Amino acid sequence: MSHGILSSTDLPRLVEELTRRAEHHHSSGGEFCLQPRPAPETVIEVVEQLRALLFPGFFNGSDDLTSETVLYYVGATLERIIRPLKEQIQRGLCFVCNVCDPATRCEGHARQVTKEFLYRLPAVQRMLNLDAEAAYLGDPASISTDEVIFCYPGLHALTCQRLAHELHRLGVPIIPRMITEYAHGRTGIDIHPGAVLGERLFIDHGTGVVVGETCVIGNNVKIYQGVTLGAKSFPLDEKGNPIKGIARHPLIEDDVTIYAGATILGRVTIGRGSIIGGNVWLTRSVPAGARITQAHVREELFRDGAGI
Amino acid sequence: MSHGILSSTDLPRLVEELTRRAEHHHSSGGEFCLQPRPAPETVIEVVEQLRALLFPGFFNGSDDLTSETVLYYVGATLERIIRPLKEQIQRGLCFVCNVCDPATRCEGHARQVTKEFLYRLPAVQRMLNLDAEAAYLGDPASISTDEVIFCYPGLHALTCQRLAHELHRLGVPIIPRMITEYAHGRTGIDIHPGAVLGERLFIDHGTGVVVGETCVIGNNVKIYQGVTLGAKSFPLDEKGNPIKGIARHPLIEDDVTIYAGATILGRVTIGRGSIIGGNVWLTRSVPAGARITQAHVREELFRDGAGI
Amino acid sequence: MSHGILSSTDLPRLVEELTRRAEHHHSSGGEFCLQPRPAPETVIEVVEQLRALLFPGFFNGSDDLTSETVLYYVGATLERIIRPLKEQIQRGLCFVCNVCDPATRCEGHARQVTKEFLYRLPAVQRMLNLDAEAAYLGDPASISTDEVIFCYPGLHALTCQRLAHELHRLGVPIIPRMITEYAHGRTGIDIHPGAVLGERLFIDHGTGVVVGETCVIGNNVKIYQGVTLGAKSFPLDEKGNPIKGIARHPLIEDDVTIYAGATILGRVTIGRGSIIGGNVWLTRSVPAGARITQAHVREELFRDGAGI
Amino acid sequence: MSHGILSSTDLPRLVEELTRRAEHHHSSGGEFCLQPRPAPETVIEVVEQLRALLFPGFFNGSDDLTSETVLYYVGATLERIIRPLKEQIQRGLCFVCNVCDPATRCEGHARQVTKEFLYRLPAVQRMLNLDAEAAYLGDPASISTDEVIFCYPGLHALTCQRLAHELHRLGVPIIPRMITEYAHGRTGIDIHPGAVLGERLFIDHGTGVVVGETCVIGNNVKIYQGVTLGAKSFPLDEKGNPIKGIARHPLIEDDVTIYAGATILGRVTIGRGSIIGGNVWLTRSVPAGARITQAHVREELFRDGAGI
Amino acid sequence: MSHGILSSTDLPRLVEELTRRAEHHHSSGGEFCLQPRPAPETVIEVVEQLRALLFPGFFNGSDDLTSETVLYYVGATLERIIRPLKEQIQRGLCFVCNVCDPATRCEGHARQVTKEFLYRLPAVQRMLNLDAEAAYLGDPASISTDEVIFCYPGLHALTCQRLAHELHRLGVPIIPRMITEYAHGRTGIDIHPGAVLGERLFIDHGTGVVVGETCVIGNNVKIYQGVTLGAKSFPLDEKGNPIKGIARHPLIEDDVTIYAGATILGRVTIGRGSIIGGNVWLTRSVPAGARITQAHVREELFRDGAGI
Amino acid sequence: MSHGILSSTDLPRLVEELTRRAEHHHSSGGEFCLQPRPAPETVIEVVEQLRALLFPGFFNGSDDLTSETVLYYVGATLERIIRPLKEQIQRGLCFVCNVCDPATRCEGHARQVTKEFLYRLPAVQRMLNLDAEAAYLGDPASISTDEVIFCYPGLHALTCQRLAHELHRLGVPIIPRMITEYAHGRTGIDIHPGAVLGERLFIDHGTGVVVGETCVIGNNVKIYQGVTLGAKSFPLDEKGNPIKGIARHPLIEDDVTIYAGATILGRVTIGRGSIIGGNVWLTRSVPAGARITQAHVREELFRDGAGI
Repeated sequence: MSHGILSSTDLPRLVEELTRRAEHHHSSGGEFCLQPRPAPETVIEVVEQLRALLFPGFFNGSDDLTSETVLYYVGATLERIIRPLKEQIQRGLCFVCNVCDPATRCEGHARQVTKEFLYRLPAVQRMLNLDAEAAYLGDPASISTDEVIFCYPGLHALTCQRLAHELHRLGVPIIPRMITEYAHGRTGIDIHPGAVLGERLFIDHGTGVVVGETCVIGNNVKIYQGVTLGAKSFPLDEKGNPIKGIARHPLIEDDVTIYAGATILGRVTIGRGSIIGGNVWLTRSVPAGARITQAHVREELFRDGAGI
Repeated sequence: MSHGILSSTDLPRLVEELTRRAEHHHSSGGEFCLQPRPAPETVIEVVEQLRALLFPGFFNGSDDLTSETVLYYVGATLERIIRPLKEQIQRGLCFVCNVCDPATRCEGHARQVTKEFLYRLPAVQRMLNLDAEAAYLGDPASISTDEVIFCYPGLHALTCQRLAHELHRLGVPIIPRMITEYAHGRTGIDIHPGAVLGERLFIDHGTGVVVGETCVIGNNVKIYQGVTLGAKSFPLDEKGNPIKGIARHPLIEDDVTIYAGATILGRVTIGRGSIIGGNVWLTRSVPAGARITQAHVREELFRDGAGI
Repeated sequence: MSHGILSSTDLPRLVEELTRRAEHHHSSGGEFCLQPRPAPETVIEVVEQLRALLFPGFFNGSDDLTSETVLYYVGATLERIIRPLKEQIQRGLCFVCNVCDPATRCEGHARQVTKEFLYRLPAVQRMLNLDAEAAYLGDPASISTDEVIFCYPGLHALTCQRLAHELHRLGVPIIPRMITEYAHGRTGIDIHPGAVLGERLFIDHGTGVVVGETCVIGNNVKIYQGVTLGAKSFPLDEKGNPIKGIARHPLIEDDVTIYAGATILGRVTIGRGSIIGGNVWLTRSVPAGARITQAHVREELFRDGAGI
Repeated sequence: MSHGILSSTDLPRLVEELTRRAEHHHSSGGEFCLQPRPAPETVIEVVEQLRALLFPGFFNGSDDLTSETVLYYVGATLERIIRPLKEQIQRGLCFVCNVCDPATRCEGHARQVTKEFLYRLPAVQRMLNLDAEAAYLGDPASISTDEVIFCYPGLHALTCQRLAHELHRLGVPIIPRMITEYAHGRTGIDIHPGAVLGERLFIDHGTGVVVGETCVIGNNVKIYQGVTLGAKSFPLDEKGNPIKGIARHPLIEDDVTIYAGATILGRVTIGRGSIIGGNVWLTRSVPAGARITQAHVREELFRDGAGI
Repeated sequence: MSHGILSSTDLPRLVEELTRRAEHHHSSGGEFCLQPRPAPETVIEVVEQLRALLFPGFFNGSDDLTSETVLYYVGATLERIIRPLKEQIQRGLCFVCNVCDPATRCEGHARQVTKEFLYRLPAVQRMLNLDAEAAYLGDPASISTDEVIFCYPGLHALTCQRLAHELHRLGVPIIPRMITEYAHGRTGIDIHPGAVLGERLFIDHGTGVVVGETCVIGNNVKIYQGVTLGAKSFPLDEKGNPIKGIARHPLIEDDVTIYAGATILGRVTIGRGSIIGGNVWLTRSVPAGARITQAHVREELFRDGAGI
Repeated sequence: MSHGILSSTDLPRLVEELTRRAEHHHSSGGEFCLQPRPAPETVIEVVEQLRALLFPGFFNGSDDLTSETVLYYVGATLERIIRPLKEQIQRGLCFVCNVCDPATRCEGHARQVTKEFLYRLPAVQRMLNLDAEAAYLGDPASISTDEVIFCYPGLHALTCQRLAHELHRLGVPIIPRMITEYAHGRTGIDIHPGAVLGERLFIDHGTGVVVGETCVIGNNVKIYQGVTLGAKSFPLDEKGNPIKGIARHPLIEDDVTIYAGATILGRVTIGRGSIIGGNVWLTRSVPAGARITQAHVREELFRDGAGI
């Protein structure tokens, strides 16, 4: 015996017990998958390369580009990611595809999806450029759109979500969620890949923002940290499981501003141009032009020695 | 002179000044420790390996396991971590052990604690499997327990806390906190290792969740992002220092749901089956079956040009 | 053709389209920069080395220092960072300096700024030692200042901001923001480099905290997770752009405590010794000694089957 | 323009020129390949994992194995490499397979080859154990077979070649050569994958050893550094190209010792039990039991000031 | 005291002693340099990038290039290396430049040299393509020029030397030597950057090959492992130091073949088409068409029990 | 089943077979070791740090040292390595120590050896400075001792051997060999840790040099690539195993030069000031002042079409 911590009979017994439980878990969740699971590091690497080519000159040491040479960088970066992107998409397709044919292993499907996704990149790029402008104009502390692209976590999260959303629209499982969870981990901003986001969205600071799967956000919307656009309670099916796919998150119309910590739940509509104050709890629709704030706070003078 | 930024007399003077202050700091906080401090990268690596063996087939490229071969993976991973785990536990024991015997350096103690911790793994695994099921059933956007295990930050944070809690129970200093701070940094979810968590806990989205040291949470509880289960003011001792170890955080009974941003402070009880609405500030107990929501918001129509 | 996903005419067309949009973006945002942009990894590495020398014995394997040898560690670490620090400061100066002289490339300026920054390190060290003490005294769960230095995200964020603030004061663009965004990503705490922070600041848990550019915080202040010290609406110039540089964030006087999730907006003053309860929305000043809490919540008994 | 070293017209011109030449090269060497090329890092990683499982307890931190748990390590390591091994074999098959079917991409072939290779591992393991024993017995400086396995470059090179040889026998292109070139780079020992090596081969020190493609080496042979078992001149075809695949390297019978720097060229036979002295040049066969040494050296007394 | 191995007085004494000796060394070797030394990792990275662009489609995952897209790869790679290349050249210039002007720090010189070097790349590419063809034709074991480019250490060493030679011709100190020592470490082939190499050079296996600074090699030369083209004794100046820069290595004319382990020393000429057998010691010129082999070996039958 | 390459019965069978053979091997070589084996990466890292502190200003980014600050670098580097050095020495002691006491695990012994080794560093430094000077004076291509320290593989190999030799003298098993094998892999120079090397040793180029365990080399010796100072046949004990520890390698007296590829075997003496020509095979002593060269080569004119 070597490390001398578990005896030579205890270790196998513990291993056996851990394995048995793991098997039980898997037998209830389906059998072991035929394909490798998507690789998080590769997915993240592809997303960061996509960010770099959508904003050439900013990331990955692409500082030296000129208008004559930017083409090289964009082309070479695009070339490099096509294969790993397709590979991860294929793995994503197999993540839920129980009838996956071992021979083709969804390959043709993955190629088609990859191609359609790539054709969407210019449209994504256009939206992100507008987002960057909106952030510059919406934040008095910002010094340039360059600073926004280079530093702002809100734009990083939007880049991830707008890319993930295109994959989500093309029916790719799991990969879009991996992308938005990457952004969530890095920025604290959790926008579901299914959410439909309008133009010129500005998420400032952003930590704690949650935007749900069936949310629809209009143009020129401004969201601060800690805002939730979530679901209330949801209907269960006859087995007591939640029914999937029902529209259950807010519709935010154009030109709305939502301040820090506001929680808006359910399939409600926040009318055009409304302002939602911080920390409100809102589970009903409000008309265009509304201004919603918390009830008046209670104030008293501090008595000596007492806390709250 | 080389970099030419500080002169050859200025640099030593600056070094001397920085060193002096550091010494002063240390002389107030105790002398330099006899043992190496725990190594964060090793602690994190061990935790991630533990996660991989508790959910074999999901992480670290363990995709190819079958029911015949999962045993190899679990056994090999367990073997690999025992020694570094014991080493870090030993360092943790010495982090606060001022009378540490240089000869044995807490080695026997560390071996014993490691052994007891390992025997707790099957119980932790069982709890985490239940947590994964609760997340799948509690989130209409979830497509399978596999997705939950693979992607959901809430389950990642619970994995860390449930492991850290076992070390905490065994009296290991600092290491449990390092583990939960790792999860905090990655997920924004900060659950103290001392908190006692029931079965089937689901923390959705999770950014900004804080669960305090003496918190006790029942079964089937659902917590959304930004929820605080914290302490109010706390008693000071005669020197004005806070008295350590007093129960000061909420008791959450079974079947409670707490919506985003709710702040519940103090040793209060949230009765079984209660629903706590988002963004409330709650410093008193509520009975079973209560439904607590924020006071009504103020609403007015938006006057042209005005903000908030 | 190789990957067979885009045809040999489609790929160049897509590259061309992506490049064109990128150029358009850049021509509105200024021409391509003459200098390399700052390198985030280098900036972060320098900051972490600075943290290690400000707290010798805690990070980067500096466990073995004694009062005789701590000088070596501090001196060697300081030596090592001077050159990359100066290089990144120079790149930061060129990030916005459109009239940058290609010959000198702001070098003299960068050297001068680096020197002045280095002379500020002992003062920063002193402030951080006080912050660590405040955290130890302010958190009943804390076991020593060593634990605070080693584990607490609040102190990590303050270390970054206090260093960034010195660079901000010296007029270095972009680098200070890169430093605070690094801390933001790691801890969820977003303190603008321009904010002026007093002594003995304790930010507990911290996820979601936002402290704005023109905020001023006194001594002995305690801030919990999710607190926003932000701006309300701000004036626009004749072109509709926000006017930069106006004081627009709160003044927090000494001895104030602000509980989780409170949102305080605008150039308001929170008087000395006030306590601000969690989740309040506050857009006006409060006098010294005030105790502010949310309006009373609504409570009803839970009706069978109903949610919120 | 950015780096200011090549003008905005010079750079594209240079790129165009480099590209043109590269294309010319490729059009003579065949068109661009349909498959990714084998990835050297993956091939090396698989080889090192194989080495670790053939000698469990020696590499990759597998120190803690006991007779009860070694099974886990071997099984888990084997599982982990099967997929990347098959992937690289498939790429190897496509490296030369010009009629490669894009649909199946040699997949079935790769699976079959991988399987047959795996079944050969126990035989390879047996040979390597014998090689380790031979080194221990053949080197007075060696302290144990453990030391040989852990440190001796000769055994490392033999491990690589014996594995590569099995792939070579199964008709896999390029991958075997990548493996032996990896060993060549690390040890200076260059044994072609095609060489047939007997039992208990000991290559001491080894730098500069070259063993050619059609070499056959018997049992209990001992080879020192700098020994070449190579080819003389070789026949050309009608176009002046060398004719491939002709037996052109030495046959070394059992129990032969070859001292440092000997060069033996051509399809000659070194008879059983022969001893070949260092630095000889040998292009003819020698009978069993021969002792070959260099012609007598010339010796003179050193005249003052003169060199050689 | 911490590690308890050196006492708190012994450690400073040892440090002081080591420092004193180091200073003494430096004071004899010149004062501490004003510039950072060249960074080996960066030099190597630039060389490997250059190799990848000279052979597009072979390295760094550039598998997917087509004749339409190879331009992107070559252009982007070239852009990326210009700045670090210039930076290292500048450091190389300062490595020996004792009168280095701190203001300009050789910058203009470095830019000029970088530019001239880049213009030489197409010529280097042409030579390397010819070398690859020569290796394919000269080795019956080779299956294609692709294999040569991908795997053969001889071509790797020639790529490094031909690049280093261009820098050497432009008067850059130290950097060329760093490049050839990198190749030496990886392949065992040590060709001085000053050596002048003709077309279609084939170095087979290569371990132990040494080619000296003033060597000149013609076209179609073939060199095997262990060949030395070196210097004999060399003249000393009045202080007993070797006189630098004298031609002292062999001239190898066209179409020469030199077999393994031959040692040729001094400014001798090996005439066109000669064949030099293995392991010969040659310190005089030989005419065109010569065939040189070692003196006859001594052979005897092996007496029982005797070694050599 | 997942990868579908080995069936669910074949894989366990193969694992079982591989494990069985491995166990057999281990039962003949001794039981599994109680301690972790030395970690090659740590040993190498310590050696490289030692090299950096012996030549401060050359490696690890220590460019900016001045005579005022070099002390910091040397002190901090020394501090950092003491603990891992001691740990690896302890593991080395346990590599062969079958009666290792699990309680103390050779700790006291390791501490003592580490201490004595550290005290030897100044002497090692002095020797290496002399070696660097010898290389500068002995190589007309060398431009400074700085270049020698920075680039020459011979000095790198000597640095490793001189450090390893000190550990060897202190009776540490395996670690010295790991160090010299590291140098061997990097430089092709294989000097046994037991060899006793005089002052001002210059090994030029060095690939293929072998210096055996009981070799003794005087002062001012110059050795070129491919030189072997090895053993002839050696006596066997009654079981047929080689008798360990007998002096069996050459004694090289002062001022000897040995040219490329010379092979000198057995306990012979090469007299003071001798010159040994390249490629000779020498198994007897030569007197002081001797000049040894190969027998005259055979030369003939090349007949058309014939090779060698």
